[in-house]
Amino acid sequence: MDEEQRVFRDGGIVIEGDRIKAIGQSAEILAQFSGVAEHIIDLSGHILLPGSGSLFDCVFGFDVGFINTHVHTSQQLARGIADDVDLMTWLHDRIWPYESNMTQHDSYLSTLLCGIELIHCGVTCFAEAGGQHVSGMARAVSLLGLRACLTQSTMDSGHGLPPSWATRTTDHCIQSQKDNYDKYHNTSEGRIRIWFGIRQIMNSTPHLLIQTRDAAAQLKTGIHMHVAEIPYENQLVRDVHKVDHGTVTYLDKIDFLQSNLLAAHSVWIDNNEISLLSRSGVKVSHCPAAAMRMLGFAPVREMLDAGICVSLGTDGAPSNNRMSIVDEMYLASLINKGREVYANGTTDPTALPAETILRMVTVNGAKSVLWDDELGSLEVGKKADIVVVNPSSWPMVPVHDCISSLVYCMRSENVVSVMCNGSWIMKNKKIINVDEEEVILKAKEASVELLKRAGITLRSRMNMI
Amino acid sequence: MDEEQRVFRDGGIVIEGDRIKAIGQSAEILAQFSGVAEHIIDLSGHILLPGSGSLFDCVFGFDVGFINTHVHTSQQLARGIADDVDLMTWLHDRIWPYESNMTQHDSYLSTLLCGIELIHCGVTCFAEAGGQHVSGMARAVSLLGLRACLTQSTMDSGHGLPPSWATRTTDHCIQSQKDNYDKYHNTSEGRIRIWFGIRQIMNSTPHLLIQTRDAAAQLKTGIHMHVAEIPYENQLVRDVHKVDHGTVTYLDKIDFLQSNLLAAHSVWIDNNEISLLSRSGVKVSHCPAAAMRMLGFAPVREMLDAGICVSLGTDGAPSNNRMSIVDEMYLASLINKGREVYANGTTDPTALPAETILRMVTVNGAKSVLWDDELGSLEVGKKADIVVVNPSSWPMVPVHDCISSLVYCMRSENVVSVMCNGSWIMKNKKIINVDEEEVILKAKEASVELLKRAGITLRSRMNMI
Repeated sequence: MDEEQRVFRDGGIVIEGDRIKAIGQSAEILAQFSGVAEHIIDLSGHILLPGSGSLFDCVFGFDVGFINTHVHTSQQLARGIADDVDLMTWLHDRIWPYESNMTQHDSYLSTLLCGIELIHCGVTCFAEAGGQHVSGMARAVSLLGLRACLTQSTMDSGHGLPPSWATRTTDHCIQSQKDNYDKYHNTSEGRIRIWFGIRQIMNSTPHLLIQTRDAAAQLKTGIHMHVAEIPYENQLVRDVHKVDHGTVTYLDKIDFLQSNLLAAHSVWIDNNEISLLSRSGVKVSHCPAAAMRMLGFAPVREMLDAGICVSLGTDGAPSNNRMSIVDEMYLASLINKGREVYANGTTDPTALPAETILRMVTVNGAKSVLWDDELGSLEVGKKADIVVVNPSSWPMVPVHDCISSLVYCMRSENVVSVMCNGSWIMKNKKIINVDEEEVILKAKEASVELLKRAGITLRSRMNMI
Repeated sequence: MDEEQRVFRDGGIVIEGDRIKAIGQSAEILAQFSGVAEHIIDLSGHILLPGSGSLFDCVFGFDVGFINTHVHTSQQLARGIADDVDLMTWLHDRIWPYESNMTQHDSYLSTLLCGIELIHCGVTCFAEAGGQHVSGMARAVSLLGLRACLTQSTMDSGHGLPPSWATRTTDHCIQSQKDNYDKYHNTSEGRIRIWFGIRQIMNSTPHLLIQTRDAAAQLKTGIHMHVAEIPYENQLVRDVHKVDHGTVTYLDKIDFLQSNLLAAHSVWIDNNEISLLSRSGVKVSHCPAAAMRMLGFAPVREMLDAGICVSLGTDGAPSNNRMSIVDEMYLASLINKGREVYANGTTDPTALPAETILRMVTVNGAKSVLWDDELGSLEVGKKADIVVVNPSSWPMVPVHDCISSLVYCMRSENVVSVMCNGSWIMKNKKIINVDEEEVILKAKEASVELLKRAGITLRSRMNMI
């Protein structure tokens, strides 16, 4: 995923500490470095495709680690609590009670569990979409060995908020995030960064928006915000703020659209708003599964055509169920080919080709998290964030088109090892830094207790006997 | 999936030969049968969820095997040969050259490879969408231990057909299928049935349609046909056959719509045509991935509301890439919640709830393949087609809503064992009746040779060095 889009058929890579020291043809790399290397790992046994014909001469044994730019790691314990319900039930009866009853330890366990799924899906870096306890998240990310931009879920207004949230002042919201920044920014060998968060415009005073913009600029960090998720949001913004279209138009009016803004979803935006996002360098996280299920079809092709940096996110477990960036690649292809039917009368199977989607989870992901100086491609001097893929098992065989196979066929089954910051965090399917079984057990228990505290009960769908 | 939708929290099942002899509470089953049982398999170790709270008291250790009602097993060797290309390139430059150059042995290997993927995804029975060599398919299905309704791809007309196909007469098409019926119908312990096929209306004379209808009626078997796939198809039917809307309207006019017809896709149909399909008892196979990528969004909710039996299919590898009915469940949920946005202005997260989707791959699947007297539910007297799921690993944990978890969270990773016709065909992830590695190796080689023969070359997407 470097500038020249080079793909080595038989490549080698040298890692020193947390960085890539050299990359090139396997033979040359071996000739130059095998004398001084501490470990040499031969991945050819299970990752080289048999070179029996020219069609099989492609090799994608390793790629740069994937970047998930919108994931609520605190919602992992809530997987399945809000399936097949309308949006108001989802928010008021499920998600808010769940999140407002979370402890710091719940956040820790939830992020651990989510992190395990992220790693199994080849993710080395993620942008937290906003949760309750950054301390818990940071502890989990530090332990797992992942890289992350962590964000506190921030709201200073709005109807029907749980009591514990309704009393938070704007100043408290800002100060609490500054405290997180002081404590956790650039910790864990630099793997953790702290961003500012805005949950969504309907829970933000103009004062909060302005203070967030200025605080983030002052600390030179990013802002993660849900933007233009549902038509009702735009309607409300039009009514309250007297603007033409919706959230993006209003955010432009108050000079909130800056290149450090990561706008999640951005589904309900018009052509003028696409221009506004493009001109200001705002990044967009497209979450195909959550969009289909809850929000609608974002104009992704149009945003890419306008030069907007669009990356991919999974959203949270109660909005999607699967926290798999591997599946989101597949979904991004399908839904964006499909939605052309509404613009042009037929689907367009050529829309968002595989190479575009691969860029969305690598280079575009790195730009979206404001970390492209060190992430997003396998290049000398960049961080050693790497995913090892086995393309020789049943989900991917045969591989005639290695890039499309990586995007459309690969499943988490094919992800065998993951390195972050120069250290293996999964090797041969085994998570290295935590006991996966123990996390699963503890997370199960904590999630049951949490749902009890929150008073959440679900209807039975069938005749349970 | 029985009539009462019973879900046993702690169930037991007795299998004698190829059939279910008893099903009920585990304790009662053990009390009654443990004295006479030859083998007792305790699945509780990895399939019972910890009963630490009422939310976890659900158990779905085993379910009836899934039914994939539209899959081109002969296209498995063509995975990745037609990604990101327009429909005409897809058909004329990739699929037709590929299929018309297949040998019987290619079909055999392709069906073996596809069957391995189907089994890993919990499928016990499938409806072949139409391929070239039924003999090859039958050999593979027989060996794998799967259950299938096999169909020859049948065309007696149309523009731009490969030379070897262009000379086939209507009589030849019918006779060849009758020969297949004589040779393979009800073979392999009754696991194989032979159906009639119509590739699509644009490649069928009226004579072929009528003869197919009558031959299938005479032999009391089914017809598998691609129906109303693209707007152009309807346009052509309107022009040629002078009907109001499209393929479905025309098929009704010639009395082709019967309860033994399995209509794949059925995307471009209007309300009147939905009524026609419903009234005549036609079954519809919905293929969400292929629909999004190539065809458009079928009116699935409307078809279900009209009482049509809608099941799920993966379509073929070059139309989808993943042959996973597990992923299709997830996709069917997402796309059909999403497409409501075009009818109602917002998505409807309550559309096609999990229990509906689970019915689509079980009971509706069984009805679609005209085999519901023996398949589709775990009931006494029915065939022992069973999938064993482990819900305690990272893709599914925590399980708060067991039915939705099975539909929206489960991945092929969670499918551990599969039984068909009373025999294990996969156990603890190991395919029983063929050597998976050997099939993969041979399929890779055969696919390279086949593409060479067919003259198919693909563009390079990146800078391969």
